[in-house]
Amino acid sequence: MELACLDLEGVLIPEIWINVAERTGIEGLRLTTRDIPDYDQLMRGRLALLDQHGLKLSDIQQVIAGMGPLEGACEFLDWLRERFQVVILSDTYYEFALPLMRCLGWPTLFCHRLEVVDDRVTGYVLRQPDSKRKAVQAFHQLNFRVIAAGDSYNDTAMLAEAEAGILFRPPQNVIDEFPQFPVARTFDEMREAFHQARLRLL
Amino acid sequence: MELACLDLEGVLIPEIWINVAERTGIEGLRLTTRDIPDYDQLMRGRLALLDQHGLKLSDIQQVIAGMGPLEGACEFLDWLRERFQVVILSDTYYEFALPLMRCLGWPTLFCHRLEVVDDRVTGYVLRQPDSKRKAVQAFHQLNFRVIAAGDSYNDTAMLAEAEAGILFRPPQNVIDEFPQFPVARTFDEMREAFHQARLRLL
Repeated sequence: MELACLDLEGVLIPEIWINVAERTGIEGLRLTTRDIPDYDQLMRGRLALLDQHGLKLSDIQQVIAGMGPLEGACEFLDWLRERFQVVILSDTYYEFALPLMRCLGWPTLFCHRLEVVDDRVTGYVLRQPDSKRKAVQAFHQLNFRVIAAGDSYNDTAMLAEAEAGILFRPPQNVIDEFPQFPVARTFDEMREAFHQARLRLL
Repeated sequence: MELACLDLEGVLIPEIWINVAERTGIEGLRLTTRDIPDYDQLMRGRLALLDQHGLKLSDIQQVIAGMGPLEGACEFLDWLRERFQVVILSDTYYEFALPLMRCLGWPTLFCHRLEVVDDRVTGYVLRQPDSKRKAVQAFHQLNFRVIAAGDSYNDTAMLAEAEAGILFRPPQNVIDEFPQFPVARTFDEMREAFHQARLRLL
């Protein structure tokens, strides 16, 4: 039996921090792990910036709700759920993703959570390190075969752990480093890639 | 982070075999593991009966589609998905459940599958034995805390494995044997039971 595991940001919804940076004009929120490799240092910096600008959780949620899912993402997800059991594996936070989950029809989402006191984001709790790969391993223990799709470097462990991996609109360096994964650039190509992956697993 | 695990038959949709028996008039399909404790023997008998009566998979799927979900089940599931990540854990088969999953908005379903040749059901494949309990154990490895709800004896291992278990409209013998689990008889009581279970886990 096959399970489809999908990354969230860059696949179904826009990149959250980059869009919050654009929409709030806070340039420092554009920084990623490419700029600050220590994730904890990066997140503490982001939370400090939110505080400095007086941005509460509800403000950010409003910004995120305004983004909407990527064009074609809802139709793709509907198509996928009719054909596979789907679990979204993401390194974002429930509190951020929530406003967009409604538009997507509440798919099952495994991610992390924020610590919030009186609408102020005070910290974050990672459910576990290397969470995407560990989820695929857990599904294997349940005798599922996994087809996984993601867009970036932090998805490649999940793609490698799965029986089949698909890259969706990845940056060139990821394509170059992981030539074993087929690349989809549109949702039509994703449908075809999932279809082909299932055929290969039969 | 909490995950809600729900049984399917008797909680969100009617009991499939009993309803197929009623709607087709094939009395032998009423038998359950209470009558024939050996599951493999029971299933082989069921498949033989389908063959004898010339019932193909598509005929049964049509019968199942006609059942519809239990009254209030869609609203309850929508409520639950806004508040918890939800995975349905069932011992039914994807091919049977599929016609009702659309009505329920395609929640993630972990169950078993049938072997089908030219629309004839020729066999069945259990994804794994003790599948509900094993799924809860896998979610624990992913650092989720689980609130599980089910209606019958075959759910009690899942309820016991979870951090909190809820019985939904259970038979009296299950209530008597498992007094540790709160009992919900309506979907309003289920909402309250999930709410209380989460409060206890905080």
